[in-house]
Formats: sequence, C-alpha cells, structure tokens
Amino acid sequence: MASPAELAAMRRAIELSRNGALTTPPNPDVGCVILDAAGATVGEGWHERPGGPHAEITALAEAGERARGGTAVVTLEPCDHTGRTGPCTQALIAAGVARVVVAVADPNPVAAGGAATLSAHGVDVESGVLADEAAAANARWLTPFRTHRPFVVWKFAATLDGRSAAADGTSRWITGDEARADVHRLRAAVDTVIVGSGTVRADDPQLTARLDAAGVAPAADRAVEQPLRVVVDSAGRTPATARVRDDAAPTWIATAAEVGAGPDGRVDLPGLLTRLYDDGRRYVLLEGGPTLAGAFWRAGLIDRVVGYVAPALLGAGPAALADAGVTTIDAAIRLDVTDVKAFGPDLRITATPQDHRKA
Amino acid sequence: MASPAELAAMRRAIELSRNGALTTPPNPDVGCVILDAAGATVGEGWHERPGGPHAEITALAEAGERARGGTAVVTLEPCDHTGRTGPCTQALIAAGVARVVVAVADPNPVAAGGAATLSAHGVDVESGVLADEAAAANARWLTPFRTHRPFVVWKFAATLDGRSAAADGTSRWITGDEARADVHRLRAAVDTVIVGSGTVRADDPQLTARLDAAGVAPAADRAVEQPLRVVVDSAGRTPATARVRDDAAPTWIATAAEVGAGPDGRVDLPGLLTRLYDDGRRYVLLEGGPTLAGAFWRAGLIDRVVGYVAPALLGAGPAALADAGVTTIDAAIRLDVTDVKAFGPDLRITATPQDHRKA
Ligand SMILES: NC(=O)c1ccc[n+]([C@@H]2O[C@H](COP(=O)([O-])OP(=O)(O)OC[C@H]3O[C@@H](n4cnc5c(N)ncnc54)[C@H](OP(=O)(O)O)[C@@H]3O)[C@@H](O)[C@H]2O)c1
Ligand SMILES: NC(=O)c1ccc[n+]([C@@H]2O[C@H](COP(=O)([O-])OP(=O)(O)OC[C@H]3O[C@@H](n4cnc5c(N)ncnc54)[C@H](OP(=O)(O)O)[C@@H]3O)[C@@H](O)[C@H]2O)c1
Repeated sequence: MASPAELAAMRRAIELSRNGALTTPPNPDVGCVILDAAGATVGEGWHERPGGPHAEITALAEAGERARGGTAVVTLEPCDHTGRTGPCTQALIAAGVARVVVAVADPNPVAAGGAATLSAHGVDVESGVLADEAAAANARWLTPFRTHRPFVVWKFAATLDGRSAAADGTSRWITGDEARADVHRLRAAVDTVIVGSGTVRADDPQLTARLDAAGVAPAADRAVEQPLRVVVDSAGRTPATARVRDDAAPTWIATAAEVGAGPDGRVDLPGLLTRLYDDGRRYVLLEGGPTLAGAFWRAGLIDRVVGYVAPALLGAGPAALADAGVTTIDAAIRLDVTDVKAFGPDLRITATPQDHRKA
Repeated sequence: MASPAELAAMRRAIELSRNGALTTPPNPDVGCVILDAAGATVGEGWHERPGGPHAEITALAEAGERARGGTAVVTLEPCDHTGRTGPCTQALIAAGVARVVVAVADPNPVAAGGAATLSAHGVDVESGVLADEAAAANARWLTPFRTHRPFVVWKFAATLDGRSAAADGTSRWITGDEARADVHRLRAAVDTVIVGSGTVRADDPQLTARLDAAGVAPAADRAVEQPLRVVVDSAGRTPATARVRDDAAPTWIATAAEVGAGPDGRVDLPGLLTRLYDDGRRYVLLEGGPTLAGAFWRAGLIDRVVGYVAPALLGAGPAALADAGVTTIDAAIRLDVTDVKAFGPDLRITATPQDHRKA
C-alpha cells in the first residue's frame, strides 16, 4: 500500500504532469517525484517535449545521490525501451531506487514492460496508485489506445448567451486577443484540425497555428509543426481558392466518396476518425461549426470541450451548437468542468463529458 | 490628498461593504475602517441590515478610545439624520475623530449634509476618494437616485451553449440545488421580481423567496419580506389559477391598460419601472423569459447580469436571450465581468453592461 507521503507525492506528480499539456504531444503527459529513503522530496520532473528528457530522468538528476534507497513516484509506468532517450527503467536501477510507485500502466506495447523489468532487478513496484486521477490528467494520450481513434477536443467561442455569430453572420471578433492566442497555442499542440464545409464557406479560415500572430514566441529549437487541416465536405465542393488549401500546412478535403457516407449521406464521422488514426493522428481539434459539432456529439466522438465564453450578449444569431440529438432536459449532455481560466475579458471553460465511455 | 494608508483603508472599506450585498437592501452597502492617529487600523465595520448599526458605529465600537485623533475612512458620506439609529456624524464627533475620508457623497436628501456637519465641528473632511470603485460596489443603491427607476438585475440560467430549455420545452432542472438556492437568496434581497406572461404560461412559477427550500436558515430575528411579484402581461390574460396569484406574496399583473403601451402595443417598460419607483420599489430581479429580457435590453433598462451557467449542452431549445436589438457583432452588448463563482457544478457569472449610462 502507498504511504501518505507517496500519495501526496503522486498528487504532486500529477500536477507536474499537467505542465506539459501544450508542448508534450504526441508524447504522454508524465510527472515524477523522487522521495529519499526518509520520505522527503528530493527531485521533481515532468516530460516537457518530444526528444526532451522523460520526467524520471529530470527528477533523478535533481535528486542525485539522495535517490539511492529512495522511492520514485511516477504517473505512468517507466518506459523500458530506447527511443530518442534511453530506458527510464535502467536509469532508475542505476540510481539505486528501492521502490517505484506507478499510477497507470503503459498501454503502449512498444514502451511497456517497465514494471516487470524493475521487479526483475529487485525494485519494489506498486501500480495503480491514484490511477483515475493520473489517467484523467493524461487522457489526451491514453484515450486513443482504447478507442482506436484520435482524442477529440471540441473548441468553440460564444457569447454568454451561447451565440457564435451575430444575426448578420458576423463573428469577428467575439473573443479577444488573449483567447485567440490561446487557440493558436492549441492548434500548435494538436496534429489535426477539423472543420465542416459550412465554416469554410462562411469564414474561409486558414486554420494554421500562428504563434507569432498570437504573440507567443515559439521555442527557438523547434519550429511549429502545422496540424493537418481537414475539411469535412461530403461532396468535395471546397473551392480551389479556399485559404485552407494554401501551402502553409497540409490539407485534406475529406469527402463521402473517399471516407464513406453515414445514413444521412454525409461523411461518416467514425470512419473519418479511424482513417486519421490509421494515419498516425492522435490529437484532433474540432473547430466547428455548430452543425458538424452536433454530429460529433450525436456520434459520441468528443472527449473534451474547450469553450471560450465572451462577456457579451447578442440575443440573435447562430448558436455555438446545433442539433446534438438532445430533445429533453434529462437527456442533456452533462459535463464536468475541470478548469476555468480568464483570458483577457473572456473565460475559457474546459470540461469533460460525464458519460464518456471508459471501455 | 488621501495618504497611502487611507487609500488602502478605503479599498478595505469597499471590500467590507460588499459583505452586506444580500442582507442590506433597501439600505446602502457601506464599509468603514478606523485608523488611529498613527495610521494603524483599529476598527472595521459594514452595514449589515436595516435597523442594524451603520458601518461607522460598528467600526467605532471596535476602535474605542483609539479612534480619538484618528481617521474614519468610509465608502459613503456619514448620515446626518436620526432614523432607526442616531446620526453617524454625532458618533464620529463624540469619538474624537480628527479626520473623515469619504468616497461617495450621499445623494439621499434626507440623510445628506454629513460632511458639512463634520466640517462645522472642526473635523477635516475629504470626499471623492476612490469614488468610482466605491460607487460600483454600492451601485444597487446609488443608481435609482440617478435613473429614477429601480436597479434592475437580469438573472438567467442557461447551458454552456446558451439554452434555457430543451427542444421540448423542459427546463427542470438546468442548474443544480446550489444555484437555485442562490436564486432564492437573491429573491429575498430584492423588493420586486418581474417575469413575462410567456414564462407564467410556460412554467407557472411561484416566484417567492423560499429560503428553507434553499437550505438557507433565515436570520431568527427577521422574517423574509417577500418581493412583489410582477407579471408583465399586456392583455391581462394571466389565469386566475396561476401560482403567482397565490397569497404567499403580493402580486401585480401589469397590463398595457394600466401602465400604458409601447409602440409595439405591449406594456411600456420604462413606464412600468417608473410606476414601481414611484411606489417605493428600488431593486428588481428580472427573471425573464428571453422575450421580455430582450425588450429590457432594447430599452437600456438592465443594470447588472447574473447568469447561472450549467456545464451542460443541449444543441436545441430556446435561447436564454431573444431579440435584444443587436444585428451585427460590433453592436454586441459588452459586459464587464465582476465576479465568477462556482455553485455546485454551475458557474455564476456576475457582470455589468459596459455602456451603462452614468448620467
Ligand atoms: N464560434 C465558433 O467557435 C465557430 C467555429 C466554427 C464555425 N463557426 C460558425 O459556424 C458557421 C457555419 O456553420 P455550419 O453549421 O454551416 O458549419 P459546419 O458545421 O462547419 O459545416 C456543416 C457542414 O459540414 C458538412 N458535413 C459533412 N459531413 C457531415 C456530417 N457527418 N455531419 C454534419 N455535417 C457534415 C455538411 O455539409 P456537406 O455535407 O455538404 O459537406 C454540413 O452542412 C459560420 O458562420 C461560422 O462562423 C463558429
Ligand atoms: N432559464 C431561465 O432563466 C428562464 C427564465 C424565465 C423563463 N424561461 C423560459 O422562457 C420561456 C418563456 O419565454 P417567453 O419569451 O415567451 O417568456 P417571457 O419573456 O417571460 O414573456 C414574453 C411575453 O411577455 C409579454 N410582454 C409584455 N410586455 C412586453 C414587452 N414590452 N416586451 C416584450 N414582452 C412583453 C408578451 O406577451 P403579451 O404582450 O401577450 O403579454 C411576451 O410574449 C419558458 O419556456 C421558460 O421556461 C427561462
């Protein structure tokens, strides 16, 4: 059983793991705390970015000799393979750690086996500690192993009365600079951005991650990898001149002919996500509009909601979300709010669907 | 000029004044800090409820002899008349206060004159210190002196996508127990609740302040004074059996025949508010629905917004706000958010219209 000090360390490790949210993808969000033999914290780390040190390595480096005979508390099973960095299991063994407390087992067949290797080297391993909390913090990375489709974040921007454009269709700008900068950071973190053909026709958006426009300095040592831009366009009518077709980023016009059609004759959405998954895509930002977002909800394909709510009222104009298959209040899609943060005058509300299937 | 210590004390006094928000009406929200001759805080107070001691009296009682030669920092000009309590000016003079720093002059002709009385007794008086901040904290009480109508708070409850009912009209319950309890506290604080005839037809609400149902123990020494229930009902078609007509609270069915009609033939809303003001009403909770709320916005009659936002999505159903006279994004009603608070799973967002006329 994990001790109170280990439980506290795991909570801290989960907190640390969140630091990577915008920079870690496509890698997992992982945090690690090293306790010395007496149970005092002597090292902390999180995985910051692909190619960078794993959480355990950073934490061990801080702990140095004090790790010997101590305990490593880590949110994800330490890796057992040599990727861009060496296996964490070897580093933990070399540091003389006596015990490893793990929250979630690694579902990745390539990296898994860490717990067994540690045990084989005489390290005491305990798994499943605060597993639900740790899994929630790493849901973006864990979910696709289970669902065999990318993790889907639905982003919307709306007024306090739920409008995403005015009666005349104008929507620039509902939210302020800070909220829009945050959207660019999100785009830089995902590998795929999806919009419906209606949004392309109405707004002709470019859908690239423009960190400079967002006032965010990208890390000097890594260029932003632009996400794939996907237009869900049943009949393939996106004009040749659409900005989304420019050469600033790759683009896929996903048609019913290519992906397959659902019963309504429109692009089959589970099929679309399977295609993207098979193509190595793991993290999707669904940017709307309301019709396509409703179809994603009806198909149960949304894993997280990021809503930017502007302190403004319109009283008319299209809603942020159209038909989501809900007709009565008891069938409302209920969410758990996990974060509320101010971006300039706007609020960003992050939430998770309650009935999100775990299996 | 106010010293840094006096400015800090005024900020604290404004903060203290907010403590009364739900219990002070119909009296003003006032806070007071007493500094001794050396500038140290020796007393604090706020006005808690009608009939209770004024802020200055509570603060002087805490300060005792240390007030002598000191400074009273108060958000509203001390009263100069004997109401249920004696004049604060006399108490300040008797306590030997050398200086009084005031934020906002008292617009109430009955109570005003405090600054002059203090000066006449040799007390150094400075007015207008942090006047805007103090006025904002006391807007509920100050505004009617300027507008000659009650202060109007528009309350709505909606999902994250701005719906206040599902497609089939069901709306019980969008928000949770805690948010609904807060609405009952709000109703207990105002003197008037207004709804449109559409809401009465659709929901048949009782519109009373039920603090017990809300799980709130009312203060033992004062019964809840039920607000007047006003149904804005142009043709007077509210059924005799409507719950709003029960004897739990007074009710007024405000018809166009009685109040006068606007150009659209419906009840004239400025006229309605003037009637209420002339009848001594100062604090209105507008509970909707969307049509009437839109009409209040079009007429520029809303002073504050209290929105309860449930972490839920509907994708269909009536919006929280209908036609507010806005057709394009640049004409959106922009708000300043003054408070965001969680009530159970829901968020309460309090905001003030930006273009709120000051004169
Ligand atoms: N505030 C925000 O966050 C935000 C974000 C995006 C857009 N918007 C606004 O949304 C408006 C556009 O709304 P919209 O609803 O027309 O746009 P949309 O949701 O982007 O596009 C809807 C279209 O997607 C296509 N589609 C393909 N497969 C589909 C499927 N399986 N299910 C549903 N749709 C499918 C359909 O047309 P085909 O079948 O013909 O392809 C459908 O008409 C614009 O005014 C834009 O400004 C707002
Ligand atoms: N979630 C919430 O916060 C909330 C709160 C309240 C209601 N609701 C929902 O709102 C729905 C009712 O919507 P609604 O829009 O019909 O109700 P409403 O706004 O309460 O009532 C509208 C009616 O008020 C009357 N009215 C009188 N003078 C008016 C004026 N100057 N301007 C505008 N209207 C005036 C009009 O009918 P006459 O002219 O014939 O009198 C009008 O049809 C219900 O489903 C209810 O559940 C939700």
